Amino acid sequence: MLSKSQISFVNALHLKKNRKDQGLFLVEGIKSISEFINSKYQVDSIYCSGSSLKKFNDLSPSIKLHEISEPELKKISTLNTPQDALAIIRIPEKTPIRSESFLDKYTLILDGIQDPGNLGTIIRTADWFGFSQIVCSEDTVEAFNPKVVQASMGSLSRMAVHYVNLPSFIQELQLPVYGALLEGESVYTAKFDRPGLIVLGNEGKGISNGVIELITDTITIPKFGNAESLNVAVSASIICSEIKRRGL
Amino acid sequence: MLSKSQISFVNALHLKKNRKDQGLFLVEGIKSISEFINSKYQVDSIYCSGSSLKKFNDLSPSIKLHEISEPELKKISTLNTPQDALAIIRIPEKTPIRSESFLDKYTLILDGIQDPGNLGTIIRTADWFGFSQIVCSEDTVEAFNPKVVQASMGSLSRMAVHYVNLPSFIQELQLPVYGALLEGESVYTAKFDRPGLIVLGNEGKGISNGVIELITDTITIPKFGNAESLNVAVSASIICSEIKRRGL
Repeated sequence: MLSKSQISFVNALHLKKNRKDQGLFLVEGIKSISEFINSKYQVDSIYCSGSSLKKFNDLSPSIKLHEISEPELKKISTLNTPQDALAIIRIPEKTPIRSESFLDKYTLILDGIQDPGNLGTIIRTADWFGFSQIVCSEDTVEAFNPKVVQASMGSLSRMAVHYVNLPSFIQELQLPVYGALLEGESVYTAKFDRPGLIVLGNEGKGISNGVIELITDTITIPKFGNAESLNVAVSASIICSEIKRRGL
Repeated sequence: MLSKSQISFVNALHLKKNRKDQGLFLVEGIKSISEFINSKYQVDSIYCSGSSLKKFNDLSPSIKLHEISEPELKKISTLNTPQDALAIIRIPEKTPIRSESFLDKYTLILDGIQDPGNLGTIIRTADWFGFSQIVCSEDTVEAFNPKVVQASMGSLSRMAVHYVNLPSFIQELQLPVYGALLEGESVYTAKFDRPGLIVLGNEGKGISNGVIELITDTITIPKFGNAESLNVAVSASIICSEIKRRGL
């Protein structure tokens, strides 16, 4: 059974302000929840059907489990078609950024990404290609937004997503800054001769002025047809793929 | 001014059944609408603010233009944040599929894609990479779904999207069938020695059994990290990019 106060507590977490105040966020679906249980995240409680109770109890006996019906799940879910379970998970303490962790590998830098589906898809793709952290501008959509979590398909449990003042962060690192733009060196022939930062900009406005200035190498995905631009998650994916294809 | 009957006529087109009955669909945003005006599509009427009236009239004086206010646009828009204009456009007559148009190029085949954002993004990406047609299984989401149109960012105006019985279609063509699966030849080293069909499957269930049997070459995007799978629009994009990178 779901009490009124439980319903309003969970529904409050649909909103960013309350997630921040409570230090909690929501993950839905048995598969994604299991990945968070098997990660560094601390799962506080799970609302699920009776058939999933045992599975979660086996995975981690310390989690508070609440058995609820499908109609009850619909009352607290962020999804139009709720999945089988909903978990409340702690937002981890901000970990300090270690400069040395960026030295020998390529890192995705997101400058003002607004669409949660795009951020979630980028997290999922970066996880597929073996990246372990992503750095976002402060105005990038929040990683614990339910739509980001959903689109990341569990990959958020393995990806450190940092929010920083991008210009200062980039200036401090002193690494090559590869900016994805509509004009530049083809990503297929660009040298990528030293690991660095790969910057992708906002869906409509692109990379912000303060960051544009810091780009050392412009890269672009060659266009063979007529679309004016590519979706930012698609661009990120093609660049990650190309870097990995070359064994970088 | 927007009459009650206009509001209900446009809102009816939010639904697939009514789009099919009326042979009409909706496109929102000045930029996308302009691309449809400059295409083979027949734009029936446009609802927009006074400031856009002249622009559309210059583009095509034959279109019926209705000046409406922002709050009125909100009443007929399919978007949470309506754009500046909404157009009603004719769904074109089905063009017969010409087998010879598949012979000398690669074509994307979509088997049961459900998410409209994914289909729209695939149309946009295919347009970027110079593909001119996409073939979908009959259970793939409808190309005139407002979310598909939105995600395609105008590219739908240039892309022929066919819906067919996939197994019969594939069998008739007698071309290589490259199936994107979680296991197979790496897309980076796959031969692609003859143009053919590139098949991508449903978001959850993958390629259907009737189509799996017809695959001649399995291809896969190598995994370097931990995500279980890639988003289907991301997979399609990486494969299109790789084919074009090699000049195929």
